[in-house]
Amino acid sequence: MQSLQAKASEWSGVKQDDAFAIDDTNLFQKLGLETFINLSTNFYTRVYDDEEEWFRSIFANSKKEDAIQNQYEFFVQRMGGPPLYSQRRGHPALIARHRPFPVTHQAAERWLHHMQQALDGTTDIDADSKVRMMNFFRHTAFFLVAGDELKSQNQQPQCKHGTSNQTPCKNF
Amino acid sequence: MQSLQAKASEWSGVKQDDAFAIDDTNLFQKLGLETFINLSTNFYTRVYDDEEEWFRSIFANSKKEDAIQNQYEFFVQRMGGPPLYSQRRGHPALIARHRPFPVTHQAAERWLHHMQQALDGTTDIDADSKVRMMNFFRHTAFFLVAGDELKSQNQQPQCKHGTSNQTPCKNF
Repeated sequence: MQSLQAKASEWSGVKQDDAFAIDDTNLFQKLGLETFINLSTNFYTRVYDDEEEWFRSIFANSKKEDAIQNQYEFFVQRMGGPPLYSQRRGHPALIARHRPFPVTHQAAERWLHHMQQALDGTTDIDADSKVRMMNFFRHTAFFLVAGDELKSQNQQPQCKHGTSNQTPCKNF
Repeated sequence: MQSLQAKASEWSGVKQDDAFAIDDTNLFQKLGLETFINLSTNFYTRVYDDEEEWFRSIFANSKKEDAIQNQYEFFVQRMGGPPLYSQRRGHPALIARHRPFPVTHQAAERWLHHMQQALDGTTDIDADSKVRMMNFFRHTAFFLVAGDELKSQNQQPQCKHGTSNQTPCKNF
């Protein structure tokens, strides 16, 4: 089975190394907390006002201010800042926490459309940081699409042990 | 629905703050790469030799050296070191990557038994670091048990949008 990260690279068109070039520099130190808060606020303001009802409705059962906080705390933690997300919510567990939502290819593209606009509309984000972040976001969005497809394996039996004719446990 | 992290705290007996006290200090700088490699080597040497066949067999389809590398790279990344895991495999996505395995309460306790022994058998890990790491491991093990139980929700319909009588999308 193709790994989650291989699918993410193939579908996003972003190589693994480029996706995680966010780690070659400390974006939190470069940009600061306020910029991350502004970015997530801009992003979700667009999302909650989206003219595309099918996309907007994905977020309808979450409060906008919670969505903003979850997002910027994760970004801060992942991009070199303090572990704000884990202090409050534990492991990011990105795929599992997106499990309730229909993370399709189309939804990933719509998410990325709004994020590109939000990045462009947030002051104090330099061009190099924008490229790094967009590569990370694009790869991650399709990583989550790959994760979403695991749900379609629901009907498969859980791996079993002890006898050779049962479904073996395989990592991926 | 009770959150993954709330279940983890309840079942592990470790409070969220204690689990993530690994972030109050830089354990990678304190212990060094070699210690993490030794810890994971000690751990999986025990696991692959476990007299309990039901537990040992969970790992039977993974190569021991791969299991060791996946584990110490994640620990190093999560405990203040370079992002070795993400450079090679992308997001940890802990719950999704454990999806093929039967992460039961009993398996969590067995995992923790071996990890406690491995910690005690690895030189150069001071008592304070051991406590922090064990709290983190214990909370994380039961976080994964909570994640494993999401699989039993397989037969539920995916959330839908657009009309009020369909299953709504809820975050957790």
